Amino acid sequence: MIGLAVIGAGYWGPNLVRNAQATPALHLRWLCDLNEARARSVLGPYSTVQVSTCYEQILADPAVDAVAIATPAVTHFDLVRAALEAGKHVLVEKPLTCSYADGAKLVQAAQRAGLVLMCDHTFCYTPAAMKIRELIHAGEIGELCFFDSVRINLGLIQPDVGVLWDLAPHDAAILDFILPADVRPVAVTAHGADPLGTGRACVAYLSVWLSSGVLAHVHVNWLSPTKIRTVVIGGSRRTIVWNDLKPDQRLAIYDRGVDQAADPDERRQALISYRLGDVLVPALPEREALGAVMADFAAAITDGRAPQTDGHSGLRVLAVLEAAARSLAHGGTRIDIEGITS
Amino acid sequence: MIGLAVIGAGYWGPNLVRNAQATPALHLRWLCDLNEARARSVLGPYSTVQVSTCYEQILADPAVDAVAIATPAVTHFDLVRAALEAGKHVLVEKPLTCSYADGAKLVQAAQRAGLVLMCDHTFCYTPAAMKIRELIHAGEIGELCFFDSVRINLGLIQPDVGVLWDLAPHDAAILDFILPADVRPVAVTAHGADPLGTGRACVAYLSVWLSSGVLAHVHVNWLSPTKIRTVVIGGSRRTIVWNDLKPDQRLAIYDRGVDQAADPDERRQALISYRLGDVLVPALPEREALGAVMADFAAAITDGRAPQTDGHSGLRVLAVLEAAARSLAHGGTRIDIEGITS
Amino acid sequence: MIGLAVIGAGYWGPNLVRNAQATPALHLRWLCDLNEARARSVLGPYSTVQVSTCYEQILADPAVDAVAIATPAVTHFDLVRAALEAGKHVLVEKPLTCSYADGAKLVQAAQRAGLVLMCDHTFCYTPAAMKIRELIHAGEIGELCFFDSVRINLGLIQPDVGVLWDLAPHDAAILDFILPADVRPVAVTAHGADPLGTGRACVAYLSVWLSSGVLAHVHVNWLSPTKIRTVVIGGSRRTIVWNDLKPDQRLAIYDRGVDQAADPDERRQALISYRLGDVLVPALPEREALGAVMADFAAAITDGRAPQTDGHSGLRVLAVLEAAARSLAHGGTRIDIEGITS
Amino acid sequence: MIGLAVIGAGYWGPNLVRNAQATPALHLRWLCDLNEARARSVLGPYSTVQVSTCYEQILADPAVDAVAIATPAVTHFDLVRAALEAGKHVLVEKPLTCSYADGAKLVQAAQRAGLVLMCDHTFCYTPAAMKIRELIHAGEIGELCFFDSVRINLGLIQPDVGVLWDLAPHDAAILDFILPADVRPVAVTAHGADPLGTGRACVAYLSVWLSSGVLAHVHVNWLSPTKIRTVVIGGSRRTIVWNDLKPDQRLAIYDRGVDQAADPDERRQALISYRLGDVLVPALPEREALGAVMADFAAAITDGRAPQTDGHSGLRVLAVLEAAARSLAHGGTRIDIEGITS
Repeated sequence: MIGLAVIGAGYWGPNLVRNAQATPALHLRWLCDLNEARARSVLGPYSTVQVSTCYEQILADPAVDAVAIATPAVTHFDLVRAALEAGKHVLVEKPLTCSYADGAKLVQAAQRAGLVLMCDHTFCYTPAAMKIRELIHAGEIGELCFFDSVRINLGLIQPDVGVLWDLAPHDAAILDFILPADVRPVAVTAHGADPLGTGRACVAYLSVWLSSGVLAHVHVNWLSPTKIRTVVIGGSRRTIVWNDLKPDQRLAIYDRGVDQAADPDERRQALISYRLGDVLVPALPEREALGAVMADFAAAITDGRAPQTDGHSGLRVLAVLEAAARSLAHGGTRIDIEGITS
Repeated sequence: MIGLAVIGAGYWGPNLVRNAQATPALHLRWLCDLNEARARSVLGPYSTVQVSTCYEQILADPAVDAVAIATPAVTHFDLVRAALEAGKHVLVEKPLTCSYADGAKLVQAAQRAGLVLMCDHTFCYTPAAMKIRELIHAGEIGELCFFDSVRINLGLIQPDVGVLWDLAPHDAAILDFILPADVRPVAVTAHGADPLGTGRACVAYLSVWLSSGVLAHVHVNWLSPTKIRTVVIGGSRRTIVWNDLKPDQRLAIYDRGVDQAADPDERRQALISYRLGDVLVPALPEREALGAVMADFAAAITDGRAPQTDGHSGLRVLAVLEAAARSLAHGGTRIDIEGITS
Repeated sequence: MIGLAVIGAGYWGPNLVRNAQATPALHLRWLCDLNEARARSVLGPYSTVQVSTCYEQILADPAVDAVAIATPAVTHFDLVRAALEAGKHVLVEKPLTCSYADGAKLVQAAQRAGLVLMCDHTFCYTPAAMKIRELIHAGEIGELCFFDSVRINLGLIQPDVGVLWDLAPHDAAILDFILPADVRPVAVTAHGADPLGTGRACVAYLSVWLSSGVLAHVHVNWLSPTKIRTVVIGGSRRTIVWNDLKPDQRLAIYDRGVDQAADPDERRQALISYRLGDVLVPALPEREALGAVMADFAAAITDGRAPQTDGHSGLRVLAVLEAAARSLAHGGTRIDIEGITS
Repeated sequence: MIGLAVIGAGYWGPNLVRNAQATPALHLRWLCDLNEARARSVLGPYSTVQVSTCYEQILADPAVDAVAIATPAVTHFDLVRAALEAGKHVLVEKPLTCSYADGAKLVQAAQRAGLVLMCDHTFCYTPAAMKIRELIHAGEIGELCFFDSVRINLGLIQPDVGVLWDLAPHDAAILDFILPADVRPVAVTAHGADPLGTGRACVAYLSVWLSSGVLAHVHVNWLSPTKIRTVVIGGSRRTIVWNDLKPDQRLAIYDRGVDQAADPDERRQALISYRLGDVLVPALPEREALGAVMADFAAAITDGRAPQTDGHSGLRVLAVLEAAARSLAHGGTRIDIEGITS
C-alpha cells in the first residue's frame, strides 16, 4: 500500500481525506494543517490517522510515499517542489501553480525525479466527462462546432484569487480533456467585472479560440443566486448537453441540429434546414469523481505511468488561465497562448 | 377606430394580424405581401380583411391610418420612410433599420410629421419585463451588479443577417427598457463564430459596458438543440432571474447574495459572507405581449403621445447593435457607443 | 367540402372554431350559442361565419352536413340525438353523455342512420398518445405492469359535474386508446373529497383493475396550485413517462426497471435486481391535437368509416366513469364494469 | 457522553454510524452485525470503533447507554425488548414493529423502565417538515383541504415486506407530525398490485380519512424509473408543495387557490373563482435530517424527556399501516383505525 499524507484541511481537504480512506491501494497516514484543531475536527474523534501542523515532519516520514495537497494556490509551488525534492509523488489541487513558468519547473522536476505529478482536475474523472470524451473521439458528434460552459453560483469570494482562477480551471481542464488530440487553444480574451469593489473580478467571461477555428466560451460568476453547471458541446452531427446538477439526466445527446447544404454557395444563401431527431440520455454510473482521481493516482504510482490529468495537462490549463488573466488586465485584448508557453 | 394595414405575411406577420384583429381600437383593413397566396393563407378562408401585393396601394388608401411592418430588415428604411411620407403612423419590427444613421433619419421624419413611430420590442411588453423595470426603478434590487442574458435555440439561419442582428435586439431592447434613466451603454465588444461556414455568425457573445461600470453580457446562438431564454439581473440587495420558458415561474426574486463589508479595506480582504434569504415568485398575468404592443400603438396614436418603445428606443438599440457588428468585424475590439451616435 | 356548425361558444368551443377553420376539408358555416354576443366575440369582427342562437335553425340548414358540440354534458344527449335525427354527422365533447344507457342509445341511433358519431377524446390525437399506443402494440415495453396518471391543477369548479366527470374522461380515454385490444377495465373504485363544501368532489382518486390483473390509477384534482399532467406506463421491459407540460421532452422511454428472476420461487424470495439503461426521448412533431381530431372527423365522413375515437370508445369511457361515480357514491366500494354495460 | 451502539450494518446502518460519530453528545462504542466483514467495511480501516457479531455482548456492556437499531423490521420487537430489558435507551428504524399490539408492548416497557424509546422517522427532522408543521400550526395555510404524497422510484424489492410497509411509514409519520393535534386518521383503504409476481405489492395506493373529513392519499411504488418525492398540502388559504428532490426549492408556498363563496348556497352553485397570488420559497438550512434525529435522541436521554418522534408516534404510524395492510388483504375495504388501536 502507498503511504499518503493529505496537506490542507480547509474547504477541499476533507474530501481528499474521505476518498483516500476509501481507496484500498492507499494508506492514509497523516493529515497536515497549520490549524491543528481544524485537522482533528476533519478526522473526527474515532480516527487512527495522525495529525501534524508541520509539513516538513510529513515529508521526512519514510512511510509517506505520496502527498495530496489542498492548500491555497499561492503555496502550491513551494509545497509541491519540497514534496518532489523529498521524493514524494504529488497530487495537487487545481490550479497547479499561479504561473505557467512555475508550473513548468515542477513538471520538469517531477520528470527528472521519476515521480508522479498529478493535478486534481476532478471533473475529468466524472462519468459524464469520460463519456463526452469517448463520444467526441469516436466521431459521434461530428466536427466540434461550439463549446459553451456556464459555471455560476453564490460563491465565497476568495482572498487570493478572482473568480477566473477559482472556477475557470474546471472548464479549461474539461476542454483540455475532451478535445481531439490535434485541436488546442490558440488565443484567449477575457472580460470581467468587480461590482462589489472586492478588488478582484467576481464575474468573468472567457472566450477561447481553438486551432480548428472553433470558439469556446466560459461564464464564471460568484454572484449568481442560482447554481448552474452546464456545458454544451455542439457538433456537426449531434450536440451534447451536460447538466451536472441533474442527477437523473446529466448527459443528453441531441440528434438534432442544422442541416448544412453540401454546396458552399448554398450555405452562403443559408439554404439550411432543421433536423429534429431523438434525444438519448445514456445511463451513467453514479459515483464520486474524486474516488476515481485517487484510484488513478495510486495506479499511476504503482504502474509507473502518467495519470490521466498529469502535470502536462495542468500546464496546458495554466497557459489558458494565464492568457485569460493577461487579457483581463488589458481590457479584454486578445492574447495568444503561444506567448505564454514559449 | 384606427384603420390599420399589416405589411409582411412571413414569420412574424401572422402574429401582428392575429393581435391587430383582437385589438378593439384597431380596424385591420389590409394584409399586404408580395406573395398573395401567402397573405390569403395567413388570413384564412373566413376573413373579411383585404389582401394586396402592392404597398403603394395601401399607403394610398385614406382609410389606412397606420401600418405595421414585418418585412426583412433591409427593407425597413424604404418602407417606413414611404409610410411616414404618406402620413401613416408606423409600427415596425426590430431592428428599426440596418444602421444608426438611417434610423435617425426615420425618427426625425416621424417627429417632423407628428406621426407615431414605434419599434416592436415585444419583450418590453411582457408582464415580466414590466415587473423587472418596476422593481429596479423602485430600488428593490439595490444597485445593478450584473446583467446576463442567454437566448439560444435551434434557429433558422437568416438569409440577410447573422445571429447578432436576429436575436440580440431583444436583449438590447430589454436592457434599454429596464435600466435606470441615468445608466446607458458606453462600449461594446462582440465575439462570434460561423462553424458551419454560412457566411454569418451563428454563435455570438456580446459584452456591453454600462456608464455605471457594470458589465452586461448576452449569449445568442442559432445552433443550440435546447432552447434557453434566461436573463439574470444581479443587484446589491436582490437578484432577479427571468426564465421565459417557465410559465409557472417566469420571474424569481432572490433575496440572497453576497454581503459586503462596509469598510473598503475589509472588502479587499474579502471578508464577505453569504445571505441566503427567501425567493419570491410574483404572480404575473399570462397574456400575449404583442397584444399590449398593439394596444400601446393605438393609444399612442389616439393620445398623441410616444409609445413605450418609440423610435428613440429603437435608435438606442441600433447604436448597441452597430457597435457590436463593428467589434465582430474587427476581431472583438472594444467599440465606444459614442462613436456610433455622434 | 363538408358543411360544419359548431354548437357552444363557451370554454372549448373557440378551439373547435379555430381548428375547424384551419381544416381544408371542412367549411364552417355556423357558430351557435344561446348567448349571441359570446358567439360573435369568439368569431371576432372580421369573420364571414354566421351566428345563430337556435340549434334547430342550424339542424334545418341543408348546407350543414355535420355538427361539433361543445355544450355542458347534461345537454349532450338531446343535442346529439336531434342532430342525428336531422341526418347530421356529430363530433361531441367528452363525456359522450351522462350515462352509459343514454350513450348506448346514441351509438345505436348513429349506426342505424349510417352517420359518423365521434367523441372528442383530444388527448388520443396527440403525437405522444399515438407514439405510446404504437410502442405498446409493438411489444416495446413488454407486458403492462402499471398505469398511473396525475391530472391536477387549479380548475374551475364546474356547475354540473365533479372533478371526476370533468377530468377523468381524459384518462379513461387514453387508457382505452393505448391498451392492447384484449385488455379491458373490469372493475373500479373511486374515493373523493369536497373540502370546500361545493356539493361535488374536487379531489378524486380512481383505481381501475384491468382484465390482465394490472392496476391503473388516476388522480384528478381541481385544487392544486401547480399543474401536473403526467402519465407513467410501466412495462416489464421499458417504462414510458408522458409529461405533457414538458414540450421539449413530452415522452421519455426508460430502458430500466426491475429484473425478474425466471424461477417463480426466486421471485417470491425477491431475488430481483435493477437494470439502469438509457433513456430515449423520441422526436415528436409539435402540432395541435384538435387539428388532427377535426381531420379525422372529416375523413371519417368522407370515407364512410369510423373515426379513431368513435361512439364505441365514448361508450367504453362512459362505463368506467359511471362505475367510478357509483363507487364514489357508495364510499369507495368496488364496482364491476360488467354491471354497467350489461 | 452517552455510550452508543449501532445494531445493523446493512442499508441504513452506515448512515446511523456516520451521524452518530458527528454528534458531540454521543460516543459510538460498537457497531454490531451478524456479518462481521460488513460491519468492518462500514467502519473502514481507520476507525477506533469496536465490532461485534453478538448483540447480547453489546447489551451486557455497561459503557453502552443506548442502542440504535437498523435491522429488518421482523427483528425489531425482540431486539428492542431485549435492549429495554438491559436498561438501554433505544432508537429504532421505522416501522417500530410489525404489529400495533407488539409496538404497544414496547412503548409500555419503555415507560415502565423510564427509558427513551424513539422511532427514526427521519423525514420529520428535515427543515422542510419542520417548516410545514410550523406553518400549519400557525394557521398560515388555513384549514387543511387535502394531503397528497407521491413516493416512487426504482426500489429494491424487500424480502420481508411489500412497498406499503417499506415506504408508506414515511408518509404516515409526516402526516402524524404535521397535523394539528385535534386531527387524526380515522379510516384507511389501500389498493395494491404485484405485477411481477413477487408475492408482495410493489405498487400501492393508500387513502386515509382524517377526523376533520379530509382525505389524505399516498402513492408508493418500487417500479417507477423516475424518482418522485412530492407532498402537496392543500389549505383553504395557501397550499404547500414539498419537492424533496429540488434542493434549491424544496418548499414552495402558493398563495393561490379557489375562493369560496361565503354563502353555502352559492358554494353549491359553484360561484367560485380563482386567486392567483405570489409563491414564496422560504430559505431553509441544508442539513442532514439524521443528524437532527441523533441530536434529539441524545437530548431526550440527557433531559429525561420524550423525543419529537417517540414511541407513541411510532404507534400511531403503526395503526395506519396495520389498517392499510388489512385493507389491502381484503380487496380495498375501508378499515377503521379504531379497530386497530382498541
